[in-house]
Amino acid sequence: MAQNIYDNPDFFAGYSQLNRSVHGLDGAPEWPALRAMLPPLAGLRVVDLGCGFGWFCRWARAQGAASMLGLDVSEKMLARAATETRDKAIRYRRADLETLDLDPAAFDLAYSSLTLHYIADLPRLLAAVHRALVPGGRFVLSTEHAIYTAPRHPGWVAGPDGNRTWPLDQYAVEGPRTTDWLAPGVVKQHRMIGTTLTALLRAGFSLTEVVEWAPTDPQVAARPALAEERDRPMFLLVAARKPDQ
Amino acid sequence: MAQNIYDNPDFFAGYSQLNRSVHGLDGAPEWPALRAMLPPLAGLRVVDLGCGFGWFCRWARAQGAASMLGLDVSEKMLARAATETRDKAIRYRRADLETLDLDPAAFDLAYSSLTLHYIADLPRLLAAVHRALVPGGRFVLSTEHAIYTAPRHPGWVAGPDGNRTWPLDQYAVEGPRTTDWLAPGVVKQHRMIGTTLTALLRAGFSLTEVVEWAPTDPQVAARPALAEERDRPMFLLVAARKPDQ
Repeated sequence: MAQNIYDNPDFFAGYSQLNRSVHGLDGAPEWPALRAMLPPLAGLRVVDLGCGFGWFCRWARAQGAASMLGLDVSEKMLARAATETRDKAIRYRRADLETLDLDPAAFDLAYSSLTLHYIADLPRLLAAVHRALVPGGRFVLSTEHAIYTAPRHPGWVAGPDGNRTWPLDQYAVEGPRTTDWLAPGVVKQHRMIGTTLTALLRAGFSLTEVVEWAPTDPQVAARPALAEERDRPMFLLVAARKPDQ
Repeated sequence: MAQNIYDNPDFFAGYSQLNRSVHGLDGAPEWPALRAMLPPLAGLRVVDLGCGFGWFCRWARAQGAASMLGLDVSEKMLARAATETRDKAIRYRRADLETLDLDPAAFDLAYSSLTLHYIADLPRLLAAVHRALVPGGRFVLSTEHAIYTAPRHPGWVAGPDGNRTWPLDQYAVEGPRTTDWLAPGVVKQHRMIGTTLTALLRAGFSLTEVVEWAPTDPQVAARPALAEERDRPMFLLVAARKPDQ
């Protein structure tokens, strides 16, 4: 089973304070870019892998999605998500994405925000998602960027000219990375971008867009701290499609 | 026109000493991985964008390619390439890839090794390559990795624990980078992996494989200096396909 760090009380308390937990999708700077990669949602049956507090599920329903299935490993997050809506077309279910099984061809769109970097067996999960989509179905995802997950010491340091640099190492050494983000001992899976993309292709998806997210000028003007995201990317966004027939 | 640094006497002298210039394809550590991404060559009409000394052109003919067109901006490299073969099915032509025009549907395979990072207008070149391929044709390429081209100071430094790290910055700031590799003032174009891949998709290609090259254990055993390529990747390898009809 994937580590369920979100139910760690310290982690949960810290996570609940993040902009994206307090303000939802609009508190996530990469959201406008990810949203732009989504198909029109009207009438779609959608599964959200790692739904957290359910922000995306509620938003997608407001856009006209026919139904939402929100999956998460965290009981605390699902409990809060359940209190936020009375919409009967949104179902939440506790699930370990390492062993997930979904009905075949049950969804038109799979969505996953910042979850796949917790999953050790990505090919298995991608096969399950592929099977669960109808032909022509879409998979839109974000995951932590490999440059962000790779280093032994993932934090800014002064570079050769004194400016901020990111001390990259171990990029091609794939596997678990343990960091102390919000709580000690958070385990993420580092894998190269090429590995993620080739895994999608081998699962049968075709790729339609690959974006290494960086802030726009207006975003940096409004929130100057985002400028560091131009020095090293934090998020990889991918749009993929299950081919017809 | 793209900078023609290869005809700079100092650069040419230095480049001619590299393993890959002295030993050809077998002197390039990424070659086995790139070769594995090629289709069977028998009977194919092939264009090589940035053919240099013609090592790939001669190798592809030995594998049964029907014909080879080798394109390069460097007169010195083409002159040496011409002396290395009497094969009438290999043609060499001087060409600026920034303004390249090729006959439509004239090739079954396009190949490009470590050339695209010199090209400023990548979408234009990709459109030309797409047009020049038959439906179902392949494009197999290597280019310098964005992690390698991005930094202000692209060289190893001691990281927080004293180990070798790569001082990454400016990753999302795309555009020219001037370095002093073999000669002063070599201009390369830094673009993110996502930008390269999305440009291929927008040109009409489908992607079939994306590899961030790293050495194998036997390669590191034979040449220990290659271990640093596991800390930060130097090469991006991509296989793409022009869809049928």
